Amino acid sequence: MASTKPARGMRDFLPADVRKRNYVIGIIKSVYESYGFEPLETPSVENLETLMGKYGDEGNQLVFKILKRGEKLRLKTGDGRHELKESDLSDLALRYDLTVPLARVVANNKNDLPKFFKRYQIQPVWRADRPARGRFREFYQCDVDAIGSSSMVVEGELMSAVSDILKRLGFTDFTIRLNHRQVLTDILDTAGVPEELHTDALVAIDKLDKIGADGVATELSERGISDVASTMLMGIFAETQEILNQEKDINRTIVANLINIVSNETLTELGQILKFADKAPILIDPSLARGLSYYTGAIMEVTVPDLAGSLGGGGRYDGLIGMFGKEQIPACGFSLGLERILVVMDEKNMFPPEIADSTPADVLVTIWNEETISSSLKLATELRNQGLRVTVYPEAEKLGKQFKYADTIGIPYVCVAGDDEIKAGKVKLKNMKTGEESTLSIKDVASNVKI
Amino acid sequence: MASTKPARGMRDFLPADVRKRNYVIGIIKSVYESYGFEPLETPSVENLETLMGKYGDEGNQLVFKILKRGEKLRLKTGDGRHELKESDLSDLALRYDLTVPLARVVANNKNDLPKFFKRYQIQPVWRADRPARGRFREFYQCDVDAIGSSSMVVEGELMSAVSDILKRLGFTDFTIRLNHRQVLTDILDTAGVPEELHTDALVAIDKLDKIGADGVATELSERGISDVASTMLMGIFAETQEILNQEKDINRTIVANLINIVSNETLTELGQILKFADKAPILIDPSLARGLSYYTGAIMEVTVPDLAGSLGGGGRYDGLIGMFGKEQIPACGFSLGLERILVVMDEKNMFPPEIADSTPADVLVTIWNEETISSSLKLATELRNQGLRVTVYPEAEKLGKQFKYADTIGIPYVCVAGDDEIKAGKVKLKNMKTGEESTLSIKDVASNVKI
Repeated sequence: MASTKPARGMRDFLPADVRKRNYVIGIIKSVYESYGFEPLETPSVENLETLMGKYGDEGNQLVFKILKRGEKLRLKTGDGRHELKESDLSDLALRYDLTVPLARVVANNKNDLPKFFKRYQIQPVWRADRPARGRFREFYQCDVDAIGSSSMVVEGELMSAVSDILKRLGFTDFTIRLNHRQVLTDILDTAGVPEELHTDALVAIDKLDKIGADGVATELSERGISDVASTMLMGIFAETQEILNQEKDINRTIVANLINIVSNETLTELGQILKFADKAPILIDPSLARGLSYYTGAIMEVTVPDLAGSLGGGGRYDGLIGMFGKEQIPACGFSLGLERILVVMDEKNMFPPEIADSTPADVLVTIWNEETISSSLKLATELRNQGLRVTVYPEAEKLGKQFKYADTIGIPYVCVAGDDEIKAGKVKLKNMKTGEESTLSIKDVASNVKI
Repeated sequence: MASTKPARGMRDFLPADVRKRNYVIGIIKSVYESYGFEPLETPSVENLETLMGKYGDEGNQLVFKILKRGEKLRLKTGDGRHELKESDLSDLALRYDLTVPLARVVANNKNDLPKFFKRYQIQPVWRADRPARGRFREFYQCDVDAIGSSSMVVEGELMSAVSDILKRLGFTDFTIRLNHRQVLTDILDTAGVPEELHTDALVAIDKLDKIGADGVATELSERGISDVASTMLMGIFAETQEILNQEKDINRTIVANLINIVSNETLTELGQILKFADKAPILIDPSLARGLSYYTGAIMEVTVPDLAGSLGGGGRYDGLIGMFGKEQIPACGFSLGLERILVVMDEKNMFPPEIADSTPADVLVTIWNEETISSSLKLATELRNQGLRVTVYPEAEKLGKQFKYADTIGIPYVCVAGDDEIKAGKVKLKNMKTGEESTLSIKDVASNVKI
């Protein structure tokens, strides 16, 4: 017999899960729309060549590839002489993030899209990662991106919107860590890391939170960065860490500390973002690296205490869209991780009661006997017209069983239409919590149901 | 340079498309919830073995298979001596419909789910079909299923809910064609089609709408069904067709016509469905076959004039869940095709104006100069707090350019805060349709914006 479990790293969402997910998604949508972002959706399946080479070597390996079909596959596997490559077997792949598809869409529709295109996109992505606690192979990204402007107004509005979302969801202690790829480049240059090793260094620095300063130093050495450079680099970050442990005017102190290392232009950009998003809890962190290689300017990540990793991250990527079209178009975006948000909200009971204690229906309509089924169905229709969510018990079983069912699935009211009630044009309504029963006109049911 | 088109048979949905899709999905959700159906979501990727053998031979071929990863793949492709099979190369697959995953979930969670489990599920499915007009490789199914009861109340409520949805979307001329697998079996028996050829015969009969009576007769013959049986079969369907062309009491006449062929029990079930869903426009059609092999009882399909194919279909499948568990659990469901619904609604302009003429934002806030950016952002925040959707022009360009942008993307109001207005704590509001301009207190903007 086939297994009934979902595939490795994948999850089924039962109704209570879906309601929580939709609640969070609803708030994210509503805030993004209030900022003038528009919804976009792209296909789950992309041409393999669209995705390959956009996420670094590790990313390439984590892309789920789809097997060629029919003739195309037979032509490739029929000949036993050559070793098969993935590209012989696969032509399509599952979406790995929402940014590369966006870049493709912008390049493909550049005549139909406004010169500033502000879109949000909430869809699943797939990564063939080793599953672990809180890490899945299918997960939702909630992306927001503004295309077409180099102004720091974009970064500011993105940070404000993300901050609004987290506040509306009930987060009170989150921090938006902010950095700039140019800050990192300038620090690496100052420390004497040769330019061709910058990408390697960033991959190592990105792990600072996970493996600590010693771990990063070891990895820097493994990646061929000299001890002198590594020591200087870690020294600069250690100084920042000291400042981060202080209490006030942290951003100002950090910026002051960078004045001799980082260009004025870059510091001005960071200053503008702080000013334009002055209600968002932003903290400049010069050691923030972000894994992806396509960032070119500001980068950011949202963290909360008690959660390893981040709730989301993003940054400016002025070069990516040019990979798909003739034109370089500036762009900046942010991606919230739905699963991360849900983990924290679940642990801290942050869902409002109507979501946390949701029920499948407001009222269960019982069935008195085989002959009265139509009456019960008609009653259900009338209650639905009153705005109630109504489920009908499907079988003419003993009334006790029907009540027990309502109780088991948490339906707060049961409506009985027996022979007497049907004759009188009335119904009996029972409040399952209080046990209270009353006989009512059908038209008065909704006003007696308290949800 | 990589192609910027979506993969073959896949589509990007720009904001106007997404709004239309979400409008339809919203109505479907709301009606299903009013009937007490609960949301369920399952992963896009299933174990290959979960899907194989559930959709017939043709289905097996149309399932998108995912390439094995890393070591698992190398072990299989390294040895050139054997011919590779798909199962050597693939272990996972993309969801082909929402019914088989539901059956898996029910078997996997049978102790946590209520004895009657009513769920809806609106998610994409993937089929490696040859793309054609209106046929895509990724498309959304909107499924609703009731698990655990053999009562025709289930069929009745499903038909009522589907009918309510289509009416709320503005469909006035749809028909729910209803049949029963047992009716087909009895007709095939009566015509003398041997039992082992029933499945073949049904595949042919399913194409009656597409290829006509002569086409079906040819295919029946190709599939080894005798001319005598084929002629008798087509005769029975032709009689029905004549009745279908009459005007009144069609269902009663059709049932009367089947009395000598079909068992009483089956006709009673059909009669109950008609009675329990008496507001739904149901028409009994004994030639309705439905392609999928897992149906065991009532089957139905929704058609509208001027659209080849159907808006959706479904039926009872009492044997499917048992394929995943020890227990046979009765079940019945219906699937609406989102894309089909959208095609018809687009052609007939059935979207309400707020969807058809939607805009990215209610108000564009301009930027006067570099120094006033913060004032503009603050203004935007206040307008959002008034409930407006507000986009900020990201750059301090000439005001004319900013107005032109608002006009191009269809934003109905533009709000200007120049030096004078900022000093006076006021803003200038321009109605882009009428050209009307007024100077207002910030707190009065929302009440002067008519959406």
